[in-house]
Amino acid sequence: MNRLEMYLNDLAINSTDGSAVPKILKETPSTAWVDGCNGLGAVVGNFCMDLAIKKAKQVGVGWVCAKGSNHYGIAGWYPMRAMKEGLVGMSMTNTSPLMAPTRSKEAALGTNPLSLGVPAKDDKFLLDMATTAVAVGKIEIQRRKGAPLPDGWAQDPEGRVTNDAELAFQTGCLMPLGGPEINSGYKGYGLGGLVDILSGVMAGANYSTKVRKWTHTGANTAADLGQVFIAVDPNCFAPDFEERMCDFNSRLRSCTPTDPEKPVLVAGDKETINMKAVDEAGGIEYLPNQLKTCESLSQRFNVNPIRFI
Amino acid sequence: MNRLEMYLNDLAINSTDGSAVPKILKETPSTAWVDGCNGLGAVVGNFCMDLAIKKAKQVGVGWVCAKGSNHYGIAGWYPMRAMKEGLVGMSMTNTSPLMAPTRSKEAALGTNPLSLGVPAKDDKFLLDMATTAVAVGKIEIQRRKGAPLPDGWAQDPEGRVTNDAELAFQTGCLMPLGGPEINSGYKGYGLGGLVDILSGVMAGANYSTKVRKWTHTGANTAADLGQVFIAVDPNCFAPDFEERMCDFNSRLRSCTPTDPEKPVLVAGDKETINMKAVDEAGGIEYLPNQLKTCESLSQRFNVNPIRFI
Repeated sequence: MNRLEMYLNDLAINSTDGSAVPKILKETPSTAWVDGCNGLGAVVGNFCMDLAIKKAKQVGVGWVCAKGSNHYGIAGWYPMRAMKEGLVGMSMTNTSPLMAPTRSKEAALGTNPLSLGVPAKDDKFLLDMATTAVAVGKIEIQRRKGAPLPDGWAQDPEGRVTNDAELAFQTGCLMPLGGPEINSGYKGYGLGGLVDILSGVMAGANYSTKVRKWTHTGANTAADLGQVFIAVDPNCFAPDFEERMCDFNSRLRSCTPTDPEKPVLVAGDKETINMKAVDEAGGIEYLPNQLKTCESLSQRFNVNPIRFI
Repeated sequence: MNRLEMYLNDLAINSTDGSAVPKILKETPSTAWVDGCNGLGAVVGNFCMDLAIKKAKQVGVGWVCAKGSNHYGIAGWYPMRAMKEGLVGMSMTNTSPLMAPTRSKEAALGTNPLSLGVPAKDDKFLLDMATTAVAVGKIEIQRRKGAPLPDGWAQDPEGRVTNDAELAFQTGCLMPLGGPEINSGYKGYGLGGLVDILSGVMAGANYSTKVRKWTHTGANTAADLGQVFIAVDPNCFAPDFEERMCDFNSRLRSCTPTDPEKPVLVAGDKETINMKAVDEAGGIEYLPNQLKTCESLSQRFNVNPIRFI
């Protein structure tokens, strides 16, 4: 919902091609290089992940790199496709520069998320994380609340850690996971680099500061983002993988919590809990601003608005 | 040098088998499942990475999981073998429990390092990082100095962040990369989980709290660590990969630094600088304690001590 307007703007000014069909440029038994042909990121992503799944079933691993892609939504969506087939899935994408490398005054990498999805019978492990300390959304929330930022989230224009949410938002220099150098922020910076290398650089797409800025009003050039989709068949290794995954998860969840009110979670648990709450409530509650945007979009494109209960 | 005594103790009491030869248990064109047969980690690691390299050259990707392994030294060593062949390499290992999951009072994952090595003509990108905020060694250094710990490194027995290096050392609960929950420590925790899943759980080795404690005096059970070694041939994707890697590195290094005295580095630069300094100095300077240990080891095992200049 939050990204709908941006996708539509990109399509409206033809900086994304809504009718593009991704094509395979090069292939080996376990790899493929795909040109997304500037299609919607989700179209490119589904195409590539399904190809990775097919290869993993044939030779154990499928590793598919895409160039010419666009914003692909939730990184965890693609591993979930692999999980449905009993496979382990990963996806990564580069994004517009927004993170300052350790010691840098300016941004040179994106929030570059990575995701790993692992099936575990009725359970799962689903990690989906930006390699920055926080996503931009969290800065925006503090800004709207008029609340300060914790140390280690963002920099000011001089490259110093800032607690000023408004200044941080204007500067657009998030800190890598870990925060400042003393707290090993260079590891988060290294992970952001890992994501860009395996997606943008390897795919021959844009990377680092070559990636365009992305705005609400739509960009006037193609994004040419790079993405990577990996599927691995756990049956190629030790038998009973999913049984062990259940035990792995349960060992983590049964750790004694520091605060008895806050049990230890496993990656994906928070989202599972949220989805259960949504099911019980009978739907998702949207913010008035989101509903207003949705209404105005339906008028602009002359389509029926989403129906609400 | 620091680990030599531990390796020798493990060999002396036969909790590691110095004459073990790793064997392949299961194979597909792009994967292999290996039993390290309780050999030295470096023996198992070299065997597995070389197998991954062979497969990557044949079908694009080699993905090799080992069970029955031991401490394998520097995680970055194995990707370096792949880099020599023009391939991208990765390695990960689980380790003895030492990191407290977010919200947990007790340790349930190890420092679980991951490494990525990427060739780039005369340059390179070599990331080798624990998924904890810091390695134990850094806590030890503060402890010896009698200096406090920065926030976000380690917990006390009650699960609170501690600045007391002695207490942190006794407690043995490092925080994940990111530190506390407010600074996204759950991402570092998630990464530690990723490493354990792809190494220990997938290989059918020990994982999480099943991994033994590792001590200076040697452990009395086999470690049965899990490790994963991945090699990918970048020629399966866009041509001129190494040229783009050089440009990628140079975009990062040419960022305006916050402090003009501290230029922006790329993963592996610090080690390259150190190695150059060692070459110029004509050798490595060891601490008196290390030399003493080395001397007493040579007497204990009746071998010639390392010669010094």
